[in-house]
Amino acid sequence: MNELHKHILGFCDLNAGQFELVRDYFEYKRVSKKETLYEAGSNNLGHFFVVKGCLHMYLINERGSQQTLQFAIDNWWLTDHQAFRNKTASEFYIQAVEASEVLIISNEKQAELLQKYPQMEVYFRNIYEIAYGAAIMRMKYIFTYTKEEIYFKFRDAFPDFVNNMPQYLVATYLGLSPEYVSKLRRKDVS
Amino acid sequence: MNELHKHILGFCDLNAGQFELVRDYFEYKRVSKKETLYEAGSNNLGHFFVVKGCLHMYLINERGSQQTLQFAIDNWWLTDHQAFRNKTASEFYIQAVEASEVLIISNEKQAELLQKYPQMEVYFRNIYEIAYGAAIMRMKYIFTYTKEEIYFKFRDAFPDFVNNMPQYLVATYLGLSPEYVSKLRRKDVS
Repeated sequence: MNELHKHILGFCDLNAGQFELVRDYFEYKRVSKKETLYEAGSNNLGHFFVVKGCLHMYLINERGSQQTLQFAIDNWWLTDHQAFRNKTASEFYIQAVEASEVLIISNEKQAELLQKYPQMEVYFRNIYEIAYGAAIMRMKYIFTYTKEEIYFKFRDAFPDFVNNMPQYLVATYLGLSPEYVSKLRRKDVS
Repeated sequence: MNELHKHILGFCDLNAGQFELVRDYFEYKRVSKKETLYEAGSNNLGHFFVVKGCLHMYLINERGSQQTLQFAIDNWWLTDHQAFRNKTASEFYIQAVEASEVLIISNEKQAELLQKYPQMEVYFRNIYEIAYGAAIMRMKYIFTYTKEEIYFKFRDAFPDFVNNMPQYLVATYLGLSPEYVSKLRRKDVS
């Protein structure tokens, strides 16, 4: 069964015939490692569903280095929601961390989809509620733990993710410098 | 007109008769300054809508001091979404920063409300989407600006809020220490 259909069924009803029609609102794309899906400043920002693989959303800071704000792995959604809602250009980039398969929907298509299939309101209400709850928890980590605790607690909670991802991405996602994370890892294995 | 009704109408249709019925799902409460609405560890976590006033959600960190994770002023919603969804105890406290009027809905009542009034799915989908988008932006601030920039950018964006709120709350909300914010404020007026 299609991954998105399976994911939707976790939150609301949508039979196979309906899903066939819902599916048409999305563009399917295979992207290679490091391929850029959205370039900061451009006007075509979509909402991305990761079928398989991993995307991240990052910005280029004033020192010219990448700062990852958000990851999305299998069955996660990713976009800059303020820019997506307002149909404005985002200041963030969206890039594939590894070879990935994604589904992309535009603002207009998502609005039409929600209008025609009210169960998709239930689906997205759940998706956003969960994502917002997770964002509050991430804030808690950043505010209450030491840098070292943040890294090790995150690694213990998501060991496969941390071991398979480039370390500089994991570092900036946690608000740490890549150099600091290298130091921690050396300390940890020694 | 009722504040909540006005707010709902910004996102979906709900006539006066329907709102009368929706209104019954909520408990109305007047709280005084510093009154606690939810105590960490207890089982009755609701979802709070601020009609008028200001609430904050905080935790007590290992050093025994308050760390504010989230504010809610007029027309904002507040809860620990992970705990609210899962009907588990939260590790956070919810307290009135100033005398406030709030509407409170329980998990069960909210589920029933969404079931009976599908337009409330549209409403909450929008509320969570906006809140999640704002959380990503807050992360951007914390990760890309210096401590001094974080404070002054926030103060320039929300001058009334910063001037009217206790400074130690604003400080911890921004991930800064209250002492550091006092120093910045002295530097700024001198």
